[in-house]
This record gives sequence, C-alpha cells and structure tokens, in this order.
Amino acid sequence: MRGFILATFLMGAVLLGAEATTNSPQFTNDNKLIRPEGYREWVFLSSGLGMSYGDTAYDEAPNFTNVFIRPEAYREYVATGKFPDGTVMVLEVRKSESKGSINKGGHYQNRLVGIEASVKDEKRFPEKWAYFSFIGDGREPLPQAKPFPKEACWTCHNQHGEADNVFLQFYPALREAREKAAAK
Amino acid sequence: MRGFILATFLMGAVLLGAEATTNSPQFTNDNKLIRPEGYREWVFLSSGLGMSYGDTAYDEAPNFTNVFIRPEAYREYVATGKFPDGTVMVLEVRKSESKGSINKGGHYQNRLVGIEASVKDEKRFPEKWAYFSFIGDGREPLPQAKPFPKEACWTCHNQHGEADNVFLQFYPALREAREKAAAK
Repeated sequence: MRGFILATFLMGAVLLGAEATTNSPQFTNDNKLIRPEGYREWVFLSSGLGMSYGDTAYDEAPNFTNVFIRPEAYREYVATGKFPDGTVMVLEVRKSESKGSINKGGHYQNRLVGIEASVKDEKRFPEKWAYFSFIGDGREPLPQAKPFPKEACWTCHNQHGEADNVFLQFYPALREAREKAAAK
Repeated sequence: MRGFILATFLMGAVLLGAEATTNSPQFTNDNKLIRPEGYREWVFLSSGLGMSYGDTAYDEAPNFTNVFIRPEAYREYVATGKFPDGTVMVLEVRKSESKGSINKGGHYQNRLVGIEASVKDEKRFPEKWAYFSFIGDGREPLPQAKPFPKEACWTCHNQHGEADNVFLQFYPALREAREKAAAK
C-alpha cells in the first residue's frame, strides 16, 4: 500500500511538473521567444479558413488557422474571465485541400506552413502582449523569434480584440465555457 | 513537509482520477453512449469546412467540423500506431460566418449545431467501432444516443478510413506526431 501511494504520488508530481515546465513561455536573454513545443496537446480554441481583414479577391487555396491556448491559461480564463500573465496562444497555419480521398467538396487540412504565437508578460513587455512568427523570410522554420514591432500585430489586437487583446469574438467555445462557469 | 506531500499526492490523485473518470466512454445498460463532456479539452485532431463526400452544389454557409480525441487514446496511438480499446473521438459541428467584426473574407466558427462520436470497444460491439449522434430529429440535444446501424457510418469508415476505421488521411497532425515518435 505504501509503495502504491508513493508511486501514485510520484506520478502526480511528474504530471504536474511536466505541465508547468513544458507550457511556460521560454525566452532567450534578448527577449526572443523559443518556439513552443507540444502546443498540439494544448486546448484548441477555434479554427478559421482563409480569414481576411482586408478586401481581397476570392482565394482558391485558402489556409486553415488553428488556435491553441496553454491549458493553465485556458482554465484561469474560464474561472475568472482574465488572461493570466504567462498566457501563450499559438496560431498554426495549414494548407487546405479540397479534393482527396473520398472528399469532393469543402476543405480539409494538410501540411503545416506557419506557427505564430502571442504571449502575455506584463514584466517583460511594456504593452503586456507580444507577437511572434516562427517562419523566416525564406519560409524556413525558426527555433526562436523576436517580437513583432507594435504596429504589426499589437495595435490591431488592441483595437479589435474583444477581451484584453484577444479576438474572443472568433472563439465561441471559449466564451461558452466562461459563461457556463460564471453562471454557477 | 508531511502536509505538503499529502496535499501534492491528493492533487496528483485528483488529476489522475478526474482524467480517467471523465474521458472513459460511459454507456447505459442498453449500449447507449452517454454524451462525452469535457471533450473541448481533449486533443484536437483537425477541422474541416463544408467537407462533402457526395456531389453537391456550392454551399453558401458551410459548417465547420472539429475533431477531438480522448488524450489517453491520442498518446497510445502516437506511441504504438494503434487505437486502443476505449478510444473516443468527438466530431463537433459549428456554423460558419464570413462577415463579422473585422473579418471580411473566408470563414470563422460560430454556434454549436452538432456533436457526434465514435467509440472503439471490441467487447461491446462486434464490429469494434460504433458511431453516435447527440442531436435528435427535432435538432434537440440528446444526453445519450444509441449506435447508428452499421451501414450509416461504419461501412464507409471501414472502407475509406486509412487506419482502423479512422480517417487518418484528414488528420495530418496525428500522422506527423506518430511518424516523429516512430523515428525515435
């Protein structure tokens, strides 16, 4: 029995420890964000297809965008309605396909072409949130990335994001989860 | 110190227990599947927009389909290439929108309109996999659902699913995770 308890304790500690270590945003000394690994097992918020904020022509081969949030930040937002310091969200970009296997219409996802991230860190960034892309100018994957200048992402997120620089209006399931928790 | 160890042990036990309890498929005595709760925190596999297996006209307002898998089954598949008994996958159907907030083109997700599930249970189902929908004929949500007849879902999954009745060909991230684990 004592062995069992110890084993269970150790398993629990390993689980807790692994989550904290893996999901915390990691920076270099000069504030570059190290590319988050394991985000595919984070909480999925929503996806879009060919979303566009400007006037554009019809897109024959639009990209899917999948948004994931660090589980600790998801749970905190659902419980309190606030994104905690240390929130990380990843935007994964994938090519779409239309015809393949038995599919004849609509779109499904294919290969990975982009990884972007937003991080909330009030001590590190004067505007609280910073934005990153892990694809270089030659389309090569980057192991670390420096923050975008304020006008590239932050300004639009700040003006149009429904909640604390976050486009909550495009994440209906996050809003539903928060409303359900708040009604309790 | 003893109090801390006990508290940590209990937290670990609660985490482990919660995951096992919440994610295991639950059935009524007559093999109806109780609607899985908490699937939004499972591992996301992929999403599609307006996917269609038949010849259909252009869909002005296509639905998104988000697919989630029970985390234990995800980890087992990634490690071994096999879907274990007790695998549950949920297909969540959401309306799409095109114009709203600052979005002018493409599609983003909106309200929930369907929840479907597949379960692998070799002892319970002679064909191993069974398929369920938690929306009734009058579009009302159902707390439990009986399996579809074999010809409604199983046959197509069996003929066209790339791996063990699963449409792996539409889940590129699952394939990538398995290939990465197998290469180690």
